[in-house]
Amino acid sequence: MKKQNVSDAVIRRLPRYYRYLDDLHLKGIVRISSSTLGGKMGITASQIRQDLSCFGEFGQQGYGYNVEELRSEIGHILGVDNQHRIIVVGVGNLGRALMQNFHFRDAGFLLEAAFDVSPALIGTEVAGTPILDMTALERFIPEHRPDVAVLTVPQSVAQSTANRLIDLGVRGFWNFTNVELSSQVESVRFEDVHFADSLLTLSYRITTR
Amino acid sequence: MKKQNVSDAVIRRLPRYYRYLDDLHLKGIVRISSSTLGGKMGITASQIRQDLSCFGEFGQQGYGYNVEELRSEIGHILGVDNQHRIIVVGVGNLGRALMQNFHFRDAGFLLEAAFDVSPALIGTEVAGTPILDMTALERFIPEHRPDVAVLTVPQSVAQSTANRLIDLGVRGFWNFTNVELSSQVESVRFEDVHFADSLLTLSYRITTR
Repeated sequence: MKKQNVSDAVIRRLPRYYRYLDDLHLKGIVRISSSTLGGKMGITASQIRQDLSCFGEFGQQGYGYNVEELRSEIGHILGVDNQHRIIVVGVGNLGRALMQNFHFRDAGFLLEAAFDVSPALIGTEVAGTPILDMTALERFIPEHRPDVAVLTVPQSVAQSTANRLIDLGVRGFWNFTNVELSSQVESVRFEDVHFADSLLTLSYRITTR
Repeated sequence: MKKQNVSDAVIRRLPRYYRYLDDLHLKGIVRISSSTLGGKMGITASQIRQDLSCFGEFGQQGYGYNVEELRSEIGHILGVDNQHRIIVVGVGNLGRALMQNFHFRDAGFLLEAAFDVSPALIGTEVAGTPILDMTALERFIPEHRPDVAVLTVPQSVAQSTANRLIDLGVRGFWNFTNVELSSQVESVRFEDVHFADSLLTLSYRITTR
């Protein structure tokens, strides 16, 4: 599989392809042309063909794509069949909302535990996931080796918490703190969720409507 | 200002420009070249010049951009100085998390009220914003004419709640329900927050690392 030099824009579109194909698959649709898929997604057919060509040969001239096959290939590229392990660090409203409503399993993630400093929360469960004491991180992480930490701690402790987790071996961060995090460790990946970017896009659209 | 046919990709980059420029401005930086800004943002200088050219003439050959000026121009394009009015519909963990932590004002939005069906919540406040009975929507919306509704209701009532709000005159939706919403009303804009897209991007990055 050719995977080198895939641009950030293409990587960001992959989950959207996956989402649309998953939806088509659930609706029982067997095949789709690049132009129909593009029409649904608001991008051109040639963009789709160009994006997918980064990863190999998909679809057939005059037939289009087999929905289930392409969905499963893109899922594989995204790593949804990898069974990544994930922990939630910080069980405030946002951490709790994700634990209760987000389908970690559908994205290929196994939610193993959550961590907080509040004595009222430690020892309880949210949606079947135990909440452990933050001081247990030093024992838990080397033992369970989670791939990703969902960072939902207060801004003031965002970087220090990230540093602590990196020292313990965590390399992936789903960062909801709105703090730009950094690390000297080359293999660390931060994925920042910027709510404001989304609302400002909407602001533009209602302003220029 | 030229604003026609601005591509979705450019619109999505505008809030990022704004965020980076805001950060530079806060750090006291007065001017920046397109190549330095591109370096920080992980895009090319020519991409930046091309994006900004959709909206007019910015920067000077050999000088770069005036940070404060460009920040304020992009803010204006995004409508942050428009004082949009916004309401939260659904005060579960996610709605509450946004009310407590998201800086609506910095994005140019005035959070006026939140709505829920739970008797335990109605009449209380979250971060200074009153929680009203969902049945008060029919009176509140024609009176206050909010521009945007944050939709944080359960999936099962997502489309019906959107329909009800559209009938009352709401045209912008910041949609956290993970349901693809639609409307026959041409001027309605949905901005969907897809948490899974973000986590799958991270999954790709830690898988191919």
